[in-house]
Amino acid sequence: MGSNSTPQTAAKPIRCKAAVCRKAGEPLIIEEIEVAPPSSWEIRIKIICTSLCQSDISLWKLSAGPLSAFPRILGHEAAGVVESVGENVEEVKEGDIVIPVFKRNCGECKDCKCQKGNACSKFLVEYPCGMPRDGSSRFKGKNGETLHHTLRVSSFSEYTVVDVTHIVKMSPNFPIDKASLLSCGVSTGLGAAWKVAEIEGGSTVAIFGLGAVGLAVIKEMSDGGADYCFECIGLTSLMQEAFNSSRKETGKTIILGVEMHGTPLSINPLELVMTGKTIIGSMFGGVKAKVDIPIFATKYLNNELNLEGFITHEVNFEDINKAFVLLQERKSLRCIIWMDK
Amino acid sequence: MGSNSTPQTAAKPIRCKAAVCRKAGEPLIIEEIEVAPPSSWEIRIKIICTSLCQSDISLWKLSAGPLSAFPRILGHEAAGVVESVGENVEEVKEGDIVIPVFKRNCGECKDCKCQKGNACSKFLVEYPCGMPRDGSSRFKGKNGETLHHTLRVSSFSEYTVVDVTHIVKMSPNFPIDKASLLSCGVSTGLGAAWKVAEIEGGSTVAIFGLGAVGLAVIKEMSDGGADYCFECIGLTSLMQEAFNSSRKETGKTIILGVEMHGTPLSINPLELVMTGKTIIGSMFGGVKAKVDIPIFATKYLNNELNLEGFITHEVNFEDINKAFVLLQERKSLRCIIWMDK
Ligand SMILES: [Zn+2]
Ligand SMILES: [Zn+2]
Ligand SMILES: [Zn+2]
Ligand SMILES: [Zn+2]
Repeated sequence: MGSNSTPQTAAKPIRCKAAVCRKAGEPLIIEEIEVAPPSSWEIRIKIICTSLCQSDISLWKLSAGPLSAFPRILGHEAAGVVESVGENVEEVKEGDIVIPVFKRNCGECKDCKCQKGNACSKFLVEYPCGMPRDGSSRFKGKNGETLHHTLRVSSFSEYTVVDVTHIVKMSPNFPIDKASLLSCGVSTGLGAAWKVAEIEGGSTVAIFGLGAVGLAVIKEMSDGGADYCFECIGLTSLMQEAFNSSRKETGKTIILGVEMHGTPLSINPLELVMTGKTIIGSMFGGVKAKVDIPIFATKYLNNELNLEGFITHEVNFEDINKAFVLLQERKSLRCIIWMDK
Repeated sequence: MGSNSTPQTAAKPIRCKAAVCRKAGEPLIIEEIEVAPPSSWEIRIKIICTSLCQSDISLWKLSAGPLSAFPRILGHEAAGVVESVGENVEEVKEGDIVIPVFKRNCGECKDCKCQKGNACSKFLVEYPCGMPRDGSSRFKGKNGETLHHTLRVSSFSEYTVVDVTHIVKMSPNFPIDKASLLSCGVSTGLGAAWKVAEIEGGSTVAIFGLGAVGLAVIKEMSDGGADYCFECIGLTSLMQEAFNSSRKETGKTIILGVEMHGTPLSINPLELVMTGKTIIGSMFGGVKAKVDIPIFATKYLNNELNLEGFITHEVNFEDINKAFVLLQERKSLRCIIWMDK
């Protein structure tokens, strides 16, 4: 698919289009930007399609704090083709199909080698708005101004640069729009069900904030509360609702949504003890990207996983702001944004 | 041991001594009281020894709310001999050694028959300060005044009346002071480790608020936090400390302490998601009293469980207030209070 892409661009900046976020909550602006060549351990990716995740909406609205820097390029769910690689990159080469992932998985550190969880302790300092090794940016705007990165991915651009610890290689025959889904939301949900909650057959599951698809199971329906309640948005009020809706004694509430406003989750400790409930936090559903996403991909190819059902809308890149409207109005579950159509 | 006790007292009130709590946080007063005979499904127990649990201190200090009623008889960790039984009681007979348990286990309801958890849905209404079936009292004070029950047990009395759903029969050759330990604190801890946390060998465990015994494992000692943190007191600040001290990604905080002041536990949801930690509430360590306490008892008799180590002090009943001082000053772990010595 991408094997005939342009090696002559390697080691040079690329001028291309990106959807730039210049102010919190205002429509993205398609602008011409410059994308630097990849440094050591980095990969420059030609994005083929990207999709909009709830966390993009939260980050887009965020006007203060370390995760908010302007102007910047949002987007962290995508699939693309490797345009060129920096020094020391052996995992992928030009033309490979990859998906970027916001959650690091170096594969070498103590945490990555541990069976449990999906922490990665490769880098000790976190740079919230730049490349993971030094916090610098690979993006320049119109007047040479720095454009900030978001979640180590910034996929709302025709080209982006991502660290090798933040990509997963995909088979070239894997449908590219379905690949995009696996780079964040769907993998988070699958991982949470499989690795965090360890759901058994026959369990009742309530999903809070999944949007258009009415998967929510109400308390009355499940005779005493759901066995597993997932909160996927990052709203403290929804977390509280999920906790309240979980079954006494054995009910688990799994918090997946990233709450960015610092609103504390207030739990009555007596109620916690009396009900014997469990609350679990999980980033990216406990998924180790390079280990687990290939497992999900194989499941899809074996018809054990329905990804089609998640795609409710498709738009061209120039209409990216429509995708924001659809998700905010809860009309879409996933909207695929095609860069080249 | 108790087989020669007094059947001639059956069906009549018994006059005996009890340590009465007349005001929150003030020394208990040994008074002569009257204990009614057991009604249907009830058992009158001659307490042989009782021990002081942290929850007794919390309840003793409590001056408001549904769990606070004066005057009342505290105490919920004890062992004794059945003096007489009411109608419909077939599980035990006069002379049997029993321990009262504050956590109900009818053995018949849907929850009791379920493998998981230790809920019991036998009675739909909870009476916080009386007998579990109708909320009435079996205790009368000096002037015929009603003395309230505490946690369905009220063991700080030479005689008490307990519902059949709140007792566990013990072997007559089981050491009586060790039996008392199994009726609350030690069983809670064992159950929490075994049934709630499912601790594997090699795990680091931090225990917050266990008192004199320095079992606390500090964060630095365990290289990134403890795998399992238990909070045993019911202090929100200690719960917070336990949560902070638990290991990222796989750390579980198990809240066992009963918080009676309504101070909410405030969790930063972003931190919860970023760290992937788990918080579990558990009443009585998930122990189904009639099923699990006999297992602990067998372990003790097989030398697989050390109960001696928990007993740091012993006092006579008239010195019961000393036990309160020792526990509050964290000088004792468990103080056995002998009724008859
Ligand atoms: Zn996402
Ligand atoms: Zn790593
Ligand atoms: Zn207790
Ligand atoms: Zn029951």
